[in-house]
Amino acid sequence: MSRAPSIPRSKIDDYSRDQASERRDFLYDKTGAQLSAVGHYTLDPQVVNGNIENFIGTLQMPLGVAGPLKIQGEAAQGDFYVPLATTEGTLVASYSRGMRVISECGGCKTAVTRHAMQRAPVFLLADVHLAKQFGAWLEQNFLQLKSVAESTTRSGKLVDVEQYPVGNMLYTRFNFTTGDAAGQNMTGKATFAACEWIVANCHLQPKYLLSGSIDTDKKHSAMNLIRTRGKRVIAEVVLKNDVVKRLLGVDTATLFRARQISNTGSFQAGSIYNGPHSANGIAALFIATGQDEANVAESHAGITHSQLLDNGDYYWSVTLPAVICGTYGGGTALPGQRECLELMDCYGAGKADKFAEIVAAVVLAGDISLGSAVLAGDWVSSHEQYGRNRK
Amino acid sequence: MSRAPSIPRSKIDDYSRDQASERRDFLYDKTGAQLSAVGHYTLDPQVVNGNIENFIGTLQMPLGVAGPLKIQGEAAQGDFYVPLATTEGTLVASYSRGMRVISECGGCKTAVTRHAMQRAPVFLLADVHLAKQFGAWLEQNFLQLKSVAESTTRSGKLVDVEQYPVGNMLYTRFNFTTGDAAGQNMTGKATFAACEWIVANCHLQPKYLLSGSIDTDKKHSAMNLIRTRGKRVIAEVVLKNDVVKRLLGVDTATLFRARQISNTGSFQAGSIYNGPHSANGIAALFIATGQDEANVAESHAGITHSQLLDNGDYYWSVTLPAVICGTYGGGTALPGQRECLELMDCYGAGKADKFAEIVAAVVLAGDISLGSAVLAGDWVSSHEQYGRNRK
Amino acid sequence: MSRAPSIPRSKIDDYSRDQASERRDFLYDKTGAQLSAVGHYTLDPQVVNGNIENFIGTLQMPLGVAGPLKIQGEAAQGDFYVPLATTEGTLVASYSRGMRVISECGGCKTAVTRHAMQRAPVFLLADVHLAKQFGAWLEQNFLQLKSVAESTTRSGKLVDVEQYPVGNMLYTRFNFTTGDAAGQNMTGKATFAACEWIVANCHLQPKYLLSGSIDTDKKHSAMNLIRTRGKRVIAEVVLKNDVVKRLLGVDTATLFRARQISNTGSFQAGSIYNGPHSANGIAALFIATGQDEANVAESHAGITHSQLLDNGDYYWSVTLPAVICGTYGGGTALPGQRECLELMDCYGAGKADKFAEIVAAVVLAGDISLGSAVLAGDWVSSHEQYGRNRK
Amino acid sequence: MSRAPSIPRSKIDDYSRDQASERRDFLYDKTGAQLSAVGHYTLDPQVVNGNIENFIGTLQMPLGVAGPLKIQGEAAQGDFYVPLATTEGTLVASYSRGMRVISECGGCKTAVTRHAMQRAPVFLLADVHLAKQFGAWLEQNFLQLKSVAESTTRSGKLVDVEQYPVGNMLYTRFNFTTGDAAGQNMTGKATFAACEWIVANCHLQPKYLLSGSIDTDKKHSAMNLIRTRGKRVIAEVVLKNDVVKRLLGVDTATLFRARQISNTGSFQAGSIYNGPHSANGIAALFIATGQDEANVAESHAGITHSQLLDNGDYYWSVTLPAVICGTYGGGTALPGQRECLELMDCYGAGKADKFAEIVAAVVLAGDISLGSAVLAGDWVSSHEQYGRNRK
Repeated sequence: MSRAPSIPRSKIDDYSRDQASERRDFLYDKTGAQLSAVGHYTLDPQVVNGNIENFIGTLQMPLGVAGPLKIQGEAAQGDFYVPLATTEGTLVASYSRGMRVISECGGCKTAVTRHAMQRAPVFLLADVHLAKQFGAWLEQNFLQLKSVAESTTRSGKLVDVEQYPVGNMLYTRFNFTTGDAAGQNMTGKATFAACEWIVANCHLQPKYLLSGSIDTDKKHSAMNLIRTRGKRVIAEVVLKNDVVKRLLGVDTATLFRARQISNTGSFQAGSIYNGPHSANGIAALFIATGQDEANVAESHAGITHSQLLDNGDYYWSVTLPAVICGTYGGGTALPGQRECLELMDCYGAGKADKFAEIVAAVVLAGDISLGSAVLAGDWVSSHEQYGRNRK
Repeated sequence: MSRAPSIPRSKIDDYSRDQASERRDFLYDKTGAQLSAVGHYTLDPQVVNGNIENFIGTLQMPLGVAGPLKIQGEAAQGDFYVPLATTEGTLVASYSRGMRVISECGGCKTAVTRHAMQRAPVFLLADVHLAKQFGAWLEQNFLQLKSVAESTTRSGKLVDVEQYPVGNMLYTRFNFTTGDAAGQNMTGKATFAACEWIVANCHLQPKYLLSGSIDTDKKHSAMNLIRTRGKRVIAEVVLKNDVVKRLLGVDTATLFRARQISNTGSFQAGSIYNGPHSANGIAALFIATGQDEANVAESHAGITHSQLLDNGDYYWSVTLPAVICGTYGGGTALPGQRECLELMDCYGAGKADKFAEIVAAVVLAGDISLGSAVLAGDWVSSHEQYGRNRK
Repeated sequence: MSRAPSIPRSKIDDYSRDQASERRDFLYDKTGAQLSAVGHYTLDPQVVNGNIENFIGTLQMPLGVAGPLKIQGEAAQGDFYVPLATTEGTLVASYSRGMRVISECGGCKTAVTRHAMQRAPVFLLADVHLAKQFGAWLEQNFLQLKSVAESTTRSGKLVDVEQYPVGNMLYTRFNFTTGDAAGQNMTGKATFAACEWIVANCHLQPKYLLSGSIDTDKKHSAMNLIRTRGKRVIAEVVLKNDVVKRLLGVDTATLFRARQISNTGSFQAGSIYNGPHSANGIAALFIATGQDEANVAESHAGITHSQLLDNGDYYWSVTLPAVICGTYGGGTALPGQRECLELMDCYGAGKADKFAEIVAAVVLAGDISLGSAVLAGDWVSSHEQYGRNRK
Repeated sequence: MSRAPSIPRSKIDDYSRDQASERRDFLYDKTGAQLSAVGHYTLDPQVVNGNIENFIGTLQMPLGVAGPLKIQGEAAQGDFYVPLATTEGTLVASYSRGMRVISECGGCKTAVTRHAMQRAPVFLLADVHLAKQFGAWLEQNFLQLKSVAESTTRSGKLVDVEQYPVGNMLYTRFNFTTGDAAGQNMTGKATFAACEWIVANCHLQPKYLLSGSIDTDKKHSAMNLIRTRGKRVIAEVVLKNDVVKRLLGVDTATLFRARQISNTGSFQAGSIYNGPHSANGIAALFIATGQDEANVAESHAGITHSQLLDNGDYYWSVTLPAVICGTYGGGTALPGQRECLELMDCYGAGKADKFAEIVAAVVLAGDISLGSAVLAGDWVSSHEQYGRNRK
């Protein structure tokens, strides 16, 4: 079998305009496809070293700004202008509208209630009795495990090890706090060190795989919804009936009635989020700020809870149990991405919870806007106006 | 309460460098944040009209290329070079490695087995008996509904209306084929027309909401996993044991043994994907090609199925039941995004299934690479080499 | 290895008092356990031929009666006294209380909205392309399949065959209506005949397993919740605020407020039923009426949907998507079980939908009672009064 | 509106033959239904005081025995004869066959790996910040909570309180060990005491509901699958290829190949158990032994994990994360039910784990038998032979 040619490179991680250009020429030669727009960029190729391989240029995502969004959080406090990178017309306008509603109602409250990034090794024993004994051994040796794991990282701290025995195996979740980084890599490295220590020191001679798949990295799971992956974050607002009517064209009683229908539909569908559309805001904000864009998978799960108050105001909350984000590491240091974080004063050390709270507040804003638009009947029409609808 | 100032604009949809610059100046004035990198772009602002509001510049995502990937699909046939936009080090290299394995094993087979994009109105009746009658009425009037719905769109076709009665409500899914567009908007518009026709013509006088939340737009659901949203796509390959050993450093029997452990872990976790990491490839490919990046939420769900064959070769398949993508509309016409589609000959009319098959093949490649890396022990170390790990 | 002795029998299916006594003697000999209570029964052993093997006696379940329960259903109409077999103190009293509330509010409405019992063969093809072709072949040959399947059964009718392709396999659900029987066995037999016909006639030469596990017999699944297994049944009532206050000690606004909290909790927990306790009533009624008691597994899934009406009344519905029951076959003809069906005029031909509607109405009654008890604070105390609580 | 008459009673909890007879007469008078078989019983009505209300007689379930089943468990050790109450033909014979296979392979190993029965109060605070503070308060006051809760019960021990904050609420799970009782009632009572203490002592003035629905009593939930409800129990066996071939007519390689297909089908279906049919054995054993029959709902969830060993033997395990059972309380003291427990030496103090291990072993036996029958092609035919199939 003849093989198609490989992409030429001196080294896969050579980052220069010339090297990128050479790769584009190769692709043109093989496919006839022009890559002039992606080759016409302002970014310095050297800065993407560590963020990509086989670099051929950049993809320019349109960037808009929404806000201001008033937040009275634990970590995020003030009025925020939120950068959103997207190609979906209507999105920025809709989120901006929701932010205005929140702000005119006095702002939303936010909090991060749990931190738990994990790597989830599975240990293989000869039988169920030994697997159970190994579970007990693991508990008894937790402090040493913690010490070994934490020796590999500046900011990662091993909080606990959850155990899920199945047959003759022990699935575990090594839960870490990871400072201002999303922390998947530091967690992997620290857990690897702990596992190697276990193998060297445990008389029960377990074998292991570094992931038994219950960390459910890059995918949603019930376990993440229940036990947290990354950060569990909450945003809530009390919507004033008069503001809602004026800005959104519906009243709160109607919103609440419709919420029953959405909750029931979400339950029937087995949906992992019962609000309108967490993923839109999360994806646009993650791309803008150099987050791992694949983490939309885990981060978009969540719970909308609301109550109609006796005075006609409307309590609305979103709880996101698996927000995976950081203000350090990954793509956060790339020039544009860093600027987007800085726009919210969220770049670097000590900012991860603040950023996570903004994520939840943004989701809340988007849900208020879209959830109302569906009821007010301007959903289809707004897409007609702003979006690229085609018959 | 004093309010933070709104973003200045003559019109929210004014797209010019000056207007973008004015907005950045405003943001600098309010926050002190420089936005020079995002303001330093090569894109013509006029082209993003319809893709974004409150435009302030662009976010440059590093773009790499993986491949070649040999596909013997129904719609996708040949050797493909795949553009991936990401900030996650290792990702492009890892997918490229998986593509090489597939290609050296003779390529993968792919097929799209179902098309179903939907809007899901819920109809409200006075009681359960009337709701049941309405369900019957809906069946009897399907052809008229279809005619009304399809009058609003060039390419959308109403295939069927699924019914899910709950109490005195009838939840429905209006399933469409949508040609080469992802089709959420055309589906919404067509369903809206159908609903208005129903209200005008049905003697049972139902009320309705355009979405009862069982379309589960922008979020995963069991219903999407079962009933499809967008396209159901399958990719499969028979891995040769010698190629796997040579390129990946593990043998197929080990891969299969580890698959049992991953399947069991995924089941314990309630994971919506039992393979290693569909979301990574999907997100990077979606961003590169102007797809709606939020649709990673639905698209990353899926099923890995494998069997070890008697000759030691290894059958590996991924089935993605809710891939939402298009080769037309959305962000596909933006210059760089279009080039990325063109690199795979996937831009424009008649290419949507081809592109969807490539998506599945890419996921398969990534899973082969990462699934093996975990076993071969080079997972942590490769992140050390390529990625931006920090202690 | 020495083996423990087998239970003596001339034939496993010899049904006589002597044979049962001989088995009890054997067990006493081996274990020292007296089986005098189970050996002291009034049932004629001959009648259980076909219902059990290795017969040793009977287990007497206490039987109580709840009601009357007023139903204005499609098939069930009137005031019903409902037999419940249980050992759980409080259960009958609580369901009876709920039935009184329903009846004083004018009764509940019920309907069966879908019938679908299935066997779910999976077909194995060489690759994904052939599997897709086979799916098309199956559609084209549906009428012949239907004819073959229905030739094996008097009352079963093949309605459709759902297709779920995964890799090179085609999972299917052969959906039947099954008259007045629960129908698992007739469905299995009819599907087996259809599969054998397929193998004999399809040029694509598929192999098959009679169950690919997506019928999810005897276990809950998202697929059953969405696509129905057995019958989808709905019961609803409009509760009058004054009746609720008088009989249950809470008001409807409180019930509705608490419903929000239960819905949210159910969503957080990933619960398959968001009402208080469907399984209690279903299990007790199933045992009393000779249903397969294991089908509580599937039947207890469901959806509670409610709305507070403007006049303060309270709409409450339960939707059970997978009620598996029959009024014919299984244990329904045993003397006591038959009497329990006859008490509700539900024995034999033409009664299955009626019985299914009663099941849903019973669940509704139980939920109203327990859902209110939790709020009125008499939940713990009623268990103290009626139940067998011990420190 | 005229009401149907209530069931006559001096007191709902009068337990005498006369009172039962009077109720049957009343029912005959109202419905014309004879209740002679249920009125013809040998049980002393006084013993059901506390187990039922509105007592009208007994329902006689046919009782069979399966076994012997060899178990090498932590708590269960020896050869067990297992009582099964059912009306489903084939069931006892099939389980007995599976037990023989296990026993001839040297027996199965079993262990209980976790105990956690819970009541799950939800606490309502004014906003998310106070809810978070309340969570911290709860942690700080755990020892006092524990003391208050345990003062209400002889055998219940409060192990921990899990926290799941959602909006301005804190959902909790108060996890107890409950000795030999299933423990729902003692858990409810103890948690109630703890909640009242909280309300009296916490400065944050939370309100609460005794159940926020995340205990998911009497229904399956992802939370129970992950966090345990009742007991997490495991049974495993190494099946010898020659025994399997001789007794079941299939070989282990075929079993393993079919397992892949079942796992994949279960995943596609969103099934909560990926083995053949846990609920059958659990239901029959629960009824026989006076367990709460509704707990089949929770108890039937679980995980089948298997591996084909290099020597051709086959490792097969079932892990049941939410087995709810007791050897004390509930219906366990009724004469027949008690005898069934005694047959396995499982009645009374110190026997709950032993009984739970037998439950898991029984499930394993049933799965081995049915899982093989489907492959050996004798599934339909055995139902023809033993069961009450009718066209």
